Amino acid sequence: MCGNSIGKIFKITTFGESHGNAVGVVIDGCPPGIPLADETIDTALEKRRPSNAVFSTSRREADRGRIISGIFNGRTTGAPLTVMIENADMSPKDYEKTSEYFRPGHADFTYHHKYRGFNDPRGGGRSSGRETVCRVAAGAVARELLMNTHNQPASIDLFAHSVQIGSVKTNVFEKSAVYSSVLKCADKTAEEKMIKLIEECKAAGDSIGGMAELIITGIPAGLGEPVFDKLDARLAYAIMGIPAVKGVEIGDGFAVSGKMGSENNDQMADKSFLSNHAGGTLGGISTGQQIVMRIAVKPTPSINKTQRTVAKSGENIEINISGRHDVCIVPRIIPVIEAMAWITLADFVLADRIHNNLL
Amino acid sequence: MCGNSIGKIFKITTFGESHGNAVGVVIDGCPPGIPLADETIDTALEKRRPSNAVFSTSRREADRGRIISGIFNGRTTGAPLTVMIENADMSPKDYEKTSEYFRPGHADFTYHHKYRGFNDPRGGGRSSGRETVCRVAAGAVARELLMNTHNQPASIDLFAHSVQIGSVKTNVFEKSAVYSSVLKCADKTAEEKMIKLIEECKAAGDSIGGMAELIITGIPAGLGEPVFDKLDARLAYAIMGIPAVKGVEIGDGFAVSGKMGSENNDQMADKSFLSNHAGGTLGGISTGQQIVMRIAVKPTPSINKTQRTVAKSGENIEINISGRHDVCIVPRIIPVIEAMAWITLADFVLADRIHNNLL
Amino acid sequence: MCGNSIGKIFKITTFGESHGNAVGVVIDGCPPGIPLADETIDTALEKRRPSNAVFSTSRREADRGRIISGIFNGRTTGAPLTVMIENADMSPKDYEKTSEYFRPGHADFTYHHKYRGFNDPRGGGRSSGRETVCRVAAGAVARELLMNTHNQPASIDLFAHSVQIGSVKTNVFEKSAVYSSVLKCADKTAEEKMIKLIEECKAAGDSIGGMAELIITGIPAGLGEPVFDKLDARLAYAIMGIPAVKGVEIGDGFAVSGKMGSENNDQMADKSFLSNHAGGTLGGISTGQQIVMRIAVKPTPSINKTQRTVAKSGENIEINISGRHDVCIVPRIIPVIEAMAWITLADFVLADRIHNNLL
Amino acid sequence: MCGNSIGKIFKITTFGESHGNAVGVVIDGCPPGIPLADETIDTALEKRRPSNAVFSTSRREADRGRIISGIFNGRTTGAPLTVMIENADMSPKDYEKTSEYFRPGHADFTYHHKYRGFNDPRGGGRSSGRETVCRVAAGAVARELLMNTHNQPASIDLFAHSVQIGSVKTNVFEKSAVYSSVLKCADKTAEEKMIKLIEECKAAGDSIGGMAELIITGIPAGLGEPVFDKLDARLAYAIMGIPAVKGVEIGDGFAVSGKMGSENNDQMADKSFLSNHAGGTLGGISTGQQIVMRIAVKPTPSINKTQRTVAKSGENIEINISGRHDVCIVPRIIPVIEAMAWITLADFVLADRIHNNLL
Repeated sequence: MCGNSIGKIFKITTFGESHGNAVGVVIDGCPPGIPLADETIDTALEKRRPSNAVFSTSRREADRGRIISGIFNGRTTGAPLTVMIENADMSPKDYEKTSEYFRPGHADFTYHHKYRGFNDPRGGGRSSGRETVCRVAAGAVARELLMNTHNQPASIDLFAHSVQIGSVKTNVFEKSAVYSSVLKCADKTAEEKMIKLIEECKAAGDSIGGMAELIITGIPAGLGEPVFDKLDARLAYAIMGIPAVKGVEIGDGFAVSGKMGSENNDQMADKSFLSNHAGGTLGGISTGQQIVMRIAVKPTPSINKTQRTVAKSGENIEINISGRHDVCIVPRIIPVIEAMAWITLADFVLADRIHNNLL
Repeated sequence: MCGNSIGKIFKITTFGESHGNAVGVVIDGCPPGIPLADETIDTALEKRRPSNAVFSTSRREADRGRIISGIFNGRTTGAPLTVMIENADMSPKDYEKTSEYFRPGHADFTYHHKYRGFNDPRGGGRSSGRETVCRVAAGAVARELLMNTHNQPASIDLFAHSVQIGSVKTNVFEKSAVYSSVLKCADKTAEEKMIKLIEECKAAGDSIGGMAELIITGIPAGLGEPVFDKLDARLAYAIMGIPAVKGVEIGDGFAVSGKMGSENNDQMADKSFLSNHAGGTLGGISTGQQIVMRIAVKPTPSINKTQRTVAKSGENIEINISGRHDVCIVPRIIPVIEAMAWITLADFVLADRIHNNLL
Repeated sequence: MCGNSIGKIFKITTFGESHGNAVGVVIDGCPPGIPLADETIDTALEKRRPSNAVFSTSRREADRGRIISGIFNGRTTGAPLTVMIENADMSPKDYEKTSEYFRPGHADFTYHHKYRGFNDPRGGGRSSGRETVCRVAAGAVARELLMNTHNQPASIDLFAHSVQIGSVKTNVFEKSAVYSSVLKCADKTAEEKMIKLIEECKAAGDSIGGMAELIITGIPAGLGEPVFDKLDARLAYAIMGIPAVKGVEIGDGFAVSGKMGSENNDQMADKSFLSNHAGGTLGGISTGQQIVMRIAVKPTPSINKTQRTVAKSGENIEINISGRHDVCIVPRIIPVIEAMAWITLADFVLADRIHNNLL
Repeated sequence: MCGNSIGKIFKITTFGESHGNAVGVVIDGCPPGIPLADETIDTALEKRRPSNAVFSTSRREADRGRIISGIFNGRTTGAPLTVMIENADMSPKDYEKTSEYFRPGHADFTYHHKYRGFNDPRGGGRSSGRETVCRVAAGAVARELLMNTHNQPASIDLFAHSVQIGSVKTNVFEKSAVYSSVLKCADKTAEEKMIKLIEECKAAGDSIGGMAELIITGIPAGLGEPVFDKLDARLAYAIMGIPAVKGVEIGDGFAVSGKMGSENNDQMADKSFLSNHAGGTLGGISTGQQIVMRIAVKPTPSINKTQRTVAKSGENIEINISGRHDVCIVPRIIPVIEAMAWITLADFVLADRIHNNLL
């Protein structure tokens, strides 16, 4: 069903497998004239690279994006923009054995079944988190587009941060802390506890889940295309499609289940809203307030503990996955969440132009 | 951006406003030969109609679906299938006043802004829950399609039920109780408390939120189209687009944030899974286990309490919405959740056929 | 494959069969604020109705379009716009017999095969020219949109006319003659011969083919979306999909096969083109010159002559189709060609706005 | 409007410019398990390469396709299949001067206007025929898919051949002659005259147009998705989008304008058709007969003759294009026509599976 494209006006198509020659993305619908350089892509990719922290994967990809079409004299041309990222630090040997069975929590079983054994199984192949590097590259382009769209109040900005790792939740929000934080956490005290917890998990050969929060600011009112392409529905679609994401909520989210209308409604005065329980959308269209979403991220499925599973040949086996794995995937998913948000917003900002300047 | 269609292979387009002449849906991609009668549609619509319970809206639509194309001799023809539902019990008078200001928690402000004042404001117009009757009609067609698809193990089934209303949560699950329950609740004891709570809210002129759970059984392994059209991502998209939904999660959902990999991974033995924390998908493809999702539903925004808001003319006002409103929208959203799930599944089941029987 | 929609930004979906209750069209993507009334649709439909000429079908449909959604206070709302046209003058009796065999030149055989006998066969069902009334209604909406798009030089206009009927070709072009002409012919002398020829065909129980020419004026440079959604490619797609069309060409068309580059190139001076052999596009993008296309229209397949064919039951039979048929379909296809051109242009004009006003 | 993809089920997206680093194509929707090697692509690309004939361009690209994703162990995996073709023999110097003005008959003017001067102008950039190498690569994949689809009567085959160059038309059809012919011509006597004509044009610094014919054999009845995605309409769309194509017709094509129904109808007996004036489709669905289309190809616009044009700076100039150009583009467009036909057929063959095996 051609599931490798997302977006209707700003449309991206990703390709490539974890241990093939390269991964990449084609962006169709990027307007001409946007300044863009390989460095812009690389700066974004840098954010997704594993930190040097002890709990991160030791796979080290240079992750240099090479723009191979759609650019001329440092600006987009309006033609399809393609970014390729070579797969350099491949250790196919590590994965040879894992190709023979279904790793619990991974997509090995479902890919094998769906593609009838023809899928590339090395390191998860197409289902690997490696594919998300393409999304980050496309997100960097979407961001540049929105930053250079001048009759747009050029002020849309967004970021995601870690609000929970295991049992540790953040209590304070200091935005500046996010950027210097190895866990992209806005609460330094909480971050220390999170790091300690992650190190304990690593020592135990285990992994740990968490939660991220996405905040979009400076968004104009009016984005969203009901009744199906609502802004919140499309963000949910884009973000639920990121590997390891198990839930999304907007505004007060699941907490609304316990609330009364008089508590939850955002009243208005002086042409603006008096609160933001809705999280920045009404009827699936942006209100102009900030958009707030939370995203549940499961623990990395690759763990250094004995697990029961089934070999492709059919017999029951016990496995123990060694290799290069993140103990907690949250900090590395954050740039992917940001990228999917930029990509989705680019689609809606461009869509919004269709009906403007008419009449 | 043409946001009124959903689905790629089994594609539906809804049209119509709350207080126009009719609402309806065109389904393109329905295969020929599926037995279908107006009664099948009507049975589904019946499930969405307000109960006679004191806390339900008193708007009484006959809600008869009339199939006006795509059917011949009681079977689908393969041509676009259109269902129209007349709007009979309109009380435009009730809504004349509400057209002059932005009702808190409704989409009045965002529609007015986006469509520059040209939208039909009566009763919310296009943003009204009235539109969801079209989705239920299309869901009934999708259900018939899947029920009549015989080299599909004709056993896909699904239902949603209320698991929380305000502070009251269900503790037991007795499936048979759902169908006879006015709140579509599987726990009779909990339901009594829920009804009491709803009646209290009604007496206070207030409304109350809740949570629904969707369970899909009998689904074959292999449905889902990575990397963007994952089954869970597409279900999230379809369900987040239902009015009043503020969050979706699959399997253990947000609880994964506090879990370790060793707890969360679903190990395997004897060619099957030993648990279902994932909720029925891995890598966005169905595992063959049951799919379990939970959906957060906000309290009805129309409340009989004084609220501050802004008139379209700009001044601050205080309003008090009387009229015909559900105190708790959960039981009426449940058939809409079911419909969106059927529609989404029909798309993926048909998509799955593309690559089968090759080679 | 959901083949009943066309357009990406201004998207129409038609539904309905020749002898069902109604036919109709849903338009998604129509901007808000366009003035529109049932009368606008009806005026367009009127152009498609059979003339009173002796050689026209005697089926008499009132063909009143009823706008049932997407309009409020006489203007479009931005919601899906639906037009329904009742099927009034049905003579299912006439068609009962023809449902039992495959009429030569009609789609009876292919529909029966493709839809495995489930298609509505009455009067051709979905394949009937009756469906084109929906296109004309949508074309009227597209035309209003373009006429009311004011930062578009509101000067796009278009018309089609008959340039050949059987062996008779036009020699002079007097535009004013087209509107008063029963055959939509710009050459009164030729038209007289054409009418005579058509009458002879009718007397012989036969039918006759012809050719139409489409001329689009006032089109801005820059419309078209290479490399696949070129303006000429999309016009060809839209027009080849009209029943009875067997060929399309643009500019010098098939005559280029015999020409040299020095003859065919359109040279430039003083910032404009010195000729228009290309027919108004280069590289699939409008040049700003007028667009000229010619369209081959086959003779009506229903003829009052003995023909050999096969019954659905399998045996060889001889038939003779009596009933209400146009002898020459060209004049009735002309408004459909115009409609498909308006619909296609609306799509490209709206698409063009996406990348304007950026930077 | 994202015009760089074509197909709905078997969807290709091309990227790259004439003088960038590479061109390429991503194919989404290719089923898993199809045997495929770089050599298969290269064999197809070889057919598109200029001949050594004196009248061909002297640009010599190695044109090796490198499959960089979607393949494992020599078979497709079901993931996006990407083919890259490096641009090796670039002579950007040749094109520096031509970037300063609008070459008559090329897309320079329209691209410059549409993309507001940001397009890559070197050698036509995105509008260059160079892009068609990507289509040929994708066509090779589509062909392999159809050849390896075994419950399809694996007998679909197709080819195109030259039927006219300038004033010289073919009179005899000897299929075996096509493959050995430098002009892909089935009439050796005619070909000699064609070559002579082309050489005369070359000597005169001029170019010459022509006509190709596409013949598809072994196609099953039932392909095509009315009412807009008719098989003939989609073939017209795919082929009119090839650079230099100015017209398409199917079956008797424009000749129907002069014919009567009794001549044009294909009567039936013994469950098959007695003639094929329709060219293999009825109502836009394949009849099972062979499909016959003719395509008008304009003369190469680059000619070695003085032409008037306008510089980007605005002044009138006279130019004379030297460089490496084909005198007649027909033989090099033929593999592109074949590729677009394979791509279109793959889409419809896969679409056809959706509704099969139901009920």
